[in-house]
Amino acid sequence: MQRFDLKSLAVRVGGRLDGSPDVEVTGVASIDDAQPGDVTFVAQSRYVPRLDDTGASAVILAEGVETNLPAIRVKDPYLAFLKAIEAFARPIEDSFPEGVHASAVVDPTAKLGEGVRIGPHVVVDARCEIGRDTVLGAGTVVMRDARVGERCLIYPNVTIREDCSVGNRVILHPGVVVGSDGFGFAKGEGIYHKIPQIGRVILEDDVEVGANSCIDRATTGRTIVAKGTKLDNLVQVAHNVRIGQHCVISAQSGISGSASVGDDVVMAGQVGVAGHIHVGDRVQIGGKAGVPNNIPADQAVSGIPARDHREWRRSNVHISRLPRYAEELAELRQRLEELEKANRASSSTNA
Amino acid sequence: MQRFDLKSLAVRVGGRLDGSPDVEVTGVASIDDAQPGDVTFVAQSRYVPRLDDTGASAVILAEGVETNLPAIRVKDPYLAFLKAIEAFARPIEDSFPEGVHASAVVDPTAKLGEGVRIGPHVVVDARCEIGRDTVLGAGTVVMRDARVGERCLIYPNVTIREDCSVGNRVILHPGVVVGSDGFGFAKGEGIYHKIPQIGRVILEDDVEVGANSCIDRATTGRTIVAKGTKLDNLVQVAHNVRIGQHCVISAQSGISGSASVGDDVVMAGQVGVAGHIHVGDRVQIGGKAGVPNNIPADQAVSGIPARDHREWRRSNVHISRLPRYAEELAELRQRLEELEKANRASSSTNA
Amino acid sequence: MQRFDLKSLAVRVGGRLDGSPDVEVTGVASIDDAQPGDVTFVAQSRYVPRLDDTGASAVILAEGVETNLPAIRVKDPYLAFLKAIEAFARPIEDSFPEGVHASAVVDPTAKLGEGVRIGPHVVVDARCEIGRDTVLGAGTVVMRDARVGERCLIYPNVTIREDCSVGNRVILHPGVVVGSDGFGFAKGEGIYHKIPQIGRVILEDDVEVGANSCIDRATTGRTIVAKGTKLDNLVQVAHNVRIGQHCVISAQSGISGSASVGDDVVMAGQVGVAGHIHVGDRVQIGGKAGVPNNIPADQAVSGIPARDHREWRRSNVHISRLPRYAEELAELRQRLEELEKANRASSSTNA
Repeated sequence: MQRFDLKSLAVRVGGRLDGSPDVEVTGVASIDDAQPGDVTFVAQSRYVPRLDDTGASAVILAEGVETNLPAIRVKDPYLAFLKAIEAFARPIEDSFPEGVHASAVVDPTAKLGEGVRIGPHVVVDARCEIGRDTVLGAGTVVMRDARVGERCLIYPNVTIREDCSVGNRVILHPGVVVGSDGFGFAKGEGIYHKIPQIGRVILEDDVEVGANSCIDRATTGRTIVAKGTKLDNLVQVAHNVRIGQHCVISAQSGISGSASVGDDVVMAGQVGVAGHIHVGDRVQIGGKAGVPNNIPADQAVSGIPARDHREWRRSNVHISRLPRYAEELAELRQRLEELEKANRASSSTNA
Repeated sequence: MQRFDLKSLAVRVGGRLDGSPDVEVTGVASIDDAQPGDVTFVAQSRYVPRLDDTGASAVILAEGVETNLPAIRVKDPYLAFLKAIEAFARPIEDSFPEGVHASAVVDPTAKLGEGVRIGPHVVVDARCEIGRDTVLGAGTVVMRDARVGERCLIYPNVTIREDCSVGNRVILHPGVVVGSDGFGFAKGEGIYHKIPQIGRVILEDDVEVGANSCIDRATTGRTIVAKGTKLDNLVQVAHNVRIGQHCVISAQSGISGSASVGDDVVMAGQVGVAGHIHVGDRVQIGGKAGVPNNIPADQAVSGIPARDHREWRRSNVHISRLPRYAEELAELRQRLEELEKANRASSSTNA
Repeated sequence: MQRFDLKSLAVRVGGRLDGSPDVEVTGVASIDDAQPGDVTFVAQSRYVPRLDDTGASAVILAEGVETNLPAIRVKDPYLAFLKAIEAFARPIEDSFPEGVHASAVVDPTAKLGEGVRIGPHVVVDARCEIGRDTVLGAGTVVMRDARVGERCLIYPNVTIREDCSVGNRVILHPGVVVGSDGFGFAKGEGIYHKIPQIGRVILEDDVEVGANSCIDRATTGRTIVAKGTKLDNLVQVAHNVRIGQHCVISAQSGISGSASVGDDVVMAGQVGVAGHIHVGDRVQIGGKAGVPNNIPADQAVSGIPARDHREWRRSNVHISRLPRYAEELAELRQRLEELEKANRASSSTNA
């Protein structure tokens, strides 16, 4: 367990100590979850009253906000809290010992960088390259001719297939599959004949891929996830997809074959993107949206099929009013018919 | 293969034997699938005629229902059938031998309870605790400081990450990931900076998690799945989620970060729940629903966005009638214009 | 790396050489991705102009289309390109050495066919049968009494549970789970009691299952995926489902318990099929559709709930016009009220 006296922690997060320097903190927690020993934070004034009930031993707080708790005073309490989390995060070496475990099977033609941490039952096949300081968790399999960069953190039970390339500082969570075959068949005489999938996957630097997500290799050429893009759990990236830089793609979303996604795109959960389309830079896609067509840059879209987000919200309001509209329609029809009847009566009177 | 003479099976399921006690049954099956050697059941009168065509050698049946087959007579045929299934289920020891397989890598500081069954290529890291009679299937990895309770059944290729806690009698199906990082980043200068995820996952007693489902650890604090809750395959539970007791969450559903789900909630397949919301006790959520807002207790909801289930069904009927409404609108407009024309003509006549 | 001179490649793909026979090609690529050394293809006339900019060293092309590149002339350039891909695909033995790796744990009662390739850390339990020339990738676990046919390609980290049966020439991608428990519980006194899942899974010949997909065993009887059917990544097939022959089911789709799917069905991505229903032969289901009811053969459906595809498209057009319809309704109401007012005035005048 990590331990800090409040004075050292104030230094770590760049704040001013306001209270006893000897208070010892052993964890960080949100205001509602905090127990004695935890440091918490308040970033918005509406949470200040909850300080009276928190179990925390100390709080990170802006100047001028009153509290009886020992405090670390900072300009931006949320950012300082993130620094406190980093202070308490356990280093890699606590979980993954250095060196190659005796049970790992590393092909003699594979190249291992200095400082690698290769766990039990790992497999590194012929001609693979594993960069320095990279971790391969237990049970992970790296197939022939694949390349993993430096300072990567590959968790247990990951599969990286042949010829694929993983950049530097990439994180792959447990169960991730990189380079599975694209879903490509040629139909002939009622039978699907497999099209061999001979392309690769390129994950650029600083990519992170969530647990049990799958990234298919290209049929020919490359499936690419560009620099700094983060994929959540159970995400599907099909063959020949290209995802740009610094995108965030939430859990259970799927990108179909040969689609391209620009830079700085954000997808909420369970989004689906059709094949062969382009999603422009900085597009934001709402949860559960289905995107059948190209989306120009800077749009926010939602719905199935996806359309402008505000328009989609307006549609939903109108859909909820449909029973009322149907009644109004019936009512107008009735009143119209009465008018028509009256007119017919009146015109026969006039005649 | 398990074998019972009909007399012993009648005793096992608490029924009255009606036919030869020497009939031997070697399996259980539904009425349409049953082969000679199988015992089947009929619980609803509309299935009785199918008894003429079944291949079954015996049937579990209410008193008074006629059949030529050897029968076990019971009050509740479905419940008795479940007991017959239990009778035929193979015991754990048939699939998982006792003891620690020679190829498993168990850290000397780990504590193993009596009667554990630890399969080939399993990894149990430093300071882990594995409760008595618990099974760890082949290739499963339990990372440092994690705890698995008693009588758990952890199937092959599961990953339990550091510091997580699994209760008693928990079942984790193959490929499950417990404690993967929450999907949390702080954006600065166009780049996503990882927020270390230093919290844990708590799976309480009698939880079951389906194949390849993922449960993320909390950013700080705990992600909790409470007692008796069952998750199906490919389910996503994000960081800091709390799911109550005795919920049933069907395949491919996802719960976003910091959402809380009450007790006795039922979700059909492919549901999505947004972050930071609360789903009340006993709420029922229809398949494919997207839940963007809090749902009060005891509601049944469906749709994207989710709303009252009956209201959603009504909306769908109205949506299917939209082409007709559009025609009616056009027709009313035309008739109105004719009336207006007639009125203008008449008023100029009158003038 | 595979290498062909253009003359040999022309023979392989059944085309006529048009240019120097000594040009050497080392890969295949689409027209935009191609680099020197690659052979590309043009199948549609609108792509012909791009030949001027391609990096390719040679092109597969119909007779009569002009180009300065060395060409292989064929009748159907796309089909010939597929043959070129096959020519460049690396054989199985490049990735999976023959024999049983020393670290694999194979029960003495298991039967291994000739020519099997069993990787590191594989587990084959008691009484399993592995057909000849079948590959089991590293870390794959085959539990007791399971059977895998001939010439199968089982990638790393797959789990095949007890009693399940996999046909010939089946491909299972990394992380696939075959035979996990069906999601079945009997509720009693507020608690879900597990119904033992004692059935099996049958994957027939030529089935392919994508990465991290899950196929649950039957409660009793069998879950079946019939001959030639292809499942993409992250697909869920629940207990007692029967999927017919030559279906294509795209990523992240899910089929609920006891549903049956006919032959030659095509599902796009993220489709959901409800339990206990039947999807007829040759049905086509659009992306993200939710199918709550039986679908007769030969239908194309989309939407949630799924309905005729053209009807669904028409509905979407009408939904996008709802704001306009609402305005029209308000306008008609106003004009109607003016008419009514005028009529009242006129009738009091007339009176």
